[in-house]
Amino acid sequence: MAHITLPDESLPGIVGLFNFRPETAEPLQLLAETLLRGDSPLTSGERELIAAYVSHLNNCHFCHTSHASAAMAHLNCDLSLIDDIKNGFQQIEISPKLRALLHIAAKVQKSGREVQAEDIAAAKAVGAADKEIHDTVLIAAAFCMFNRYVDGLGTWAPKEHEAYREMGQRMAFTGYVRFSVPQD
Amino acid sequence: MAHITLPDESLPGIVGLFNFRPETAEPLQLLAETLLRGDSPLTSGERELIAAYVSHLNNCHFCHTSHASAAMAHLNCDLSLIDDIKNGFQQIEISPKLRALLHIAAKVQKSGREVQAEDIAAAKAVGAADKEIHDTVLIAAAFCMFNRYVDGLGTWAPKEHEAYREMGQRMAFTGYVRFSVPQD
Repeated sequence: MAHITLPDESLPGIVGLFNFRPETAEPLQLLAETLLRGDSPLTSGERELIAAYVSHLNNCHFCHTSHASAAMAHLNCDLSLIDDIKNGFQQIEISPKLRALLHIAAKVQKSGREVQAEDIAAAKAVGAADKEIHDTVLIAAAFCMFNRYVDGLGTWAPKEHEAYREMGQRMAFTGYVRFSVPQD
Repeated sequence: MAHITLPDESLPGIVGLFNFRPETAEPLQLLAETLLRGDSPLTSGERELIAAYVSHLNNCHFCHTSHASAAMAHLNCDLSLIDDIKNGFQQIEISPKLRALLHIAAKVQKSGREVQAEDIAAAKAVGAADKEIHDTVLIAAAFCMFNRYVDGLGTWAPKEHEAYREMGQRMAFTGYVRFSVPQD
């Protein structure tokens, strides 16, 4: 049970919180949509990997597994991607540029002040442009928010990977705006 | 100088980033407006104190000082409030309820998983309602994002408290939507 009384306890993670407080759901959903599916030099698959990786580092099971499943949908991978993210991307092919950006994201997860000029220079050396660095930092920062929101209010989440397959498809291809309202 | 090339290096903190990437500025500004000035059982002054306190805990000078100045504008305090927030609110009168909520905010700053049932029970025992707990957790979480965004991209910020006085007035009374566009 969550730390606060939610109108529908069957809704997992952030979905139950969107339902509790529609006024704050709107800008949060718009932010997720813009960051993960809006215009960016990074693909949505790459951005979902950054989101899932940061969520894993924050030990947020709901956000890690759901965004890994969204990445899976974009990249047409199987469920093993969820664990591969935890294990530092040993199975999936990651470009040197994305690896450098994931390194920056991991620094942001600790603190903004952890990001050093050398981290930025290393990313630029393998082809990262300013907008890619910007979007990486902002996505990593945003998931430090989403993860704390979901876990700070003690929401529940399905344990099994399989339970996130359909959710990931919906996040990837329907999107985040009005996420709590069924689209069919 | 910031880690990325901003079109106007004279704009401090998040303002320069809003100018660099208007597409992401829009949902971020709407989120700040909703969280800090939208409908809530907490006053805007209380919400700005939570924002400034979490920003201090994240060692984000720009966000701490600017949101302390916004709180100052709402609460009609003087510049000493900026340091009082750093010193754990010794000068300003803080209700037991707000103190319990600030305690929850400090837990969220570390990790969502730090918030325990006892912290929630303690806040409820001094009168905090579910919506107040929700808004506190979300504001604290959001400033873990804003702080990382501002510092992760290495933006500059004025050092002196006095430089934030007018900014705080504008944040408090004009608001956060289209913050980077002068309103006069």
